[in-house]
Amino acid sequence: MHPANRPIGIFDSGIGGLTVANAVVRLLPEEQIIYFGDTAHMPYGDKSADAIRYYSLRIAKFLLEQDCKMIVVACNSASSAAYDILLDFFEHRALFVNVVDPLVDKVAESGHRRVGVIATRTTINSGIYSARLRDRVPGIQVCSLATPLLAPMIEEGFVHDAISRSVLDTYLGDPSLNGIEALLLACTHYPLIRPEIEAWYQGTTAIYDSTDVVAVAVRKRLTDTGLLRQDPRPPHRFYVSDFTPSFEKTTRLFYGQELHLEHFGLWN
Amino acid sequence: MHPANRPIGIFDSGIGGLTVANAVVRLLPEEQIIYFGDTAHMPYGDKSADAIRYYSLRIAKFLLEQDCKMIVVACNSASSAAYDILLDFFEHRALFVNVVDPLVDKVAESGHRRVGVIATRTTINSGIYSARLRDRVPGIQVCSLATPLLAPMIEEGFVHDAISRSVLDTYLGDPSLNGIEALLLACTHYPLIRPEIEAWYQGTTAIYDSTDVVAVAVRKRLTDTGLLRQDPRPPHRFYVSDFTPSFEKTTRLFYGQELHLEHFGLWN
Repeated sequence: MHPANRPIGIFDSGIGGLTVANAVVRLLPEEQIIYFGDTAHMPYGDKSADAIRYYSLRIAKFLLEQDCKMIVVACNSASSAAYDILLDFFEHRALFVNVVDPLVDKVAESGHRRVGVIATRTTINSGIYSARLRDRVPGIQVCSLATPLLAPMIEEGFVHDAISRSVLDTYLGDPSLNGIEALLLACTHYPLIRPEIEAWYQGTTAIYDSTDVVAVAVRKRLTDTGLLRQDPRPPHRFYVSDFTPSFEKTTRLFYGQELHLEHFGLWN
Repeated sequence: MHPANRPIGIFDSGIGGLTVANAVVRLLPEEQIIYFGDTAHMPYGDKSADAIRYYSLRIAKFLLEQDCKMIVVACNSASSAAYDILLDFFEHRALFVNVVDPLVDKVAESGHRRVGVIATRTTINSGIYSARLRDRVPGIQVCSLATPLLAPMIEEGFVHDAISRSVLDTYLGDPSLNGIEALLLACTHYPLIRPEIEAWYQGTTAIYDSTDVVAVAVRKRLTDTGLLRQDPRPPHRFYVSDFTPSFEKTTRLFYGQELHLEHFGLWN
């Protein structure tokens, strides 16, 4: 098989990374996606960095066994904790794209001087966004806030209602975010409440998420390396490490349509 | 060692089961507890029943290797999905207590005719409370509602505030719970918001949780079998399958004091 005709692997702790998968599919409809959601361990946001490193290595190994030409780490917690170790192990076997760097690049180009970052506890504790933004924009002020209730809230479908309003009031009203010019939604779940967050700020703050910027980064890497797919693609595949009907139903939320999920017992 | 001097094992998907551990310690201060929180897989509430069965078997095997005389399944999802299989495998090696039966017994004795049950999705989908209550009280009406946002909300410390109020308004105001005489809090996290739930109902509905009733059931089983501890006990041990400082801090919430957690890599 021509190396360009191999699939793109995309993984996340669960189904939130489907927002990224969907952006990639929309931008590059000719590419085949193999998605792996580690629903047996979801969410990663409160797990230890070492546990996330181990899970990520095992999942990347599985995706490489499916002959993926590229692996997209579609999870901020895994991008923060495990990206370097994934390169260490497997950089010679595939291209790797994470969800942090494309977002940091985009914000760095914007010229903002004081930005906020909201994410899971693992991502915030890693300090990755502050470090990368300060590398790119000397003197930038980065205000980071862990917002761990947002992901379960979104997964349960509480958006545009009294619950999401009081949760957003509490988090976005936190004094640590006062005076920010831009807010980075540094979790793959958060694009689903982007309209509500934009409404909360009433145009006073620019909002960034990593769906489209990651899809663009994927296209650029494939173009630069001559690995854009040439032949018609086989169907996408969507694997999960634990299966429940509820996961399948929730794919509609994150992907825009209900997907058929296949159970793959990576941990059994 | 005299068989009565062996420890009591208690396990849960995470740290919520510490509410049960604490009730047991308060009622039976002379007993030694070995607690295992499967933080690598928490929460169990959205996992598949088969995954929970497998995790429970491995954890019970670990506790039996610590020579436990009794294993308390301090998690409603695991009690629903895995209790029968635990008896199948290990009934000859230890006593087993779950968190469902003592609560069902208590409510059955109360004479209520229409009761509500709130719990995780796994527990509600198992139908265990409706089935057991109908067995015990023919003709009883059981109104079950999955309330999956409550556990993460409590873990993040959102109690007695605007967020918990809007979440409780949404869940407890659900039409499916209209007219209940009693509400069963069928998740080990929920005792922490019991006062708020009682306030919500303003005395119109009796509230039951499984902390004290399980401790009483533990004492009865140990008394009946002559296994109450006789000699001074060694220190309790608290193990987790994944360790983060945040888990340790959260023990204060569920146990009333901050505990030292030991990492045990059961899944590595």
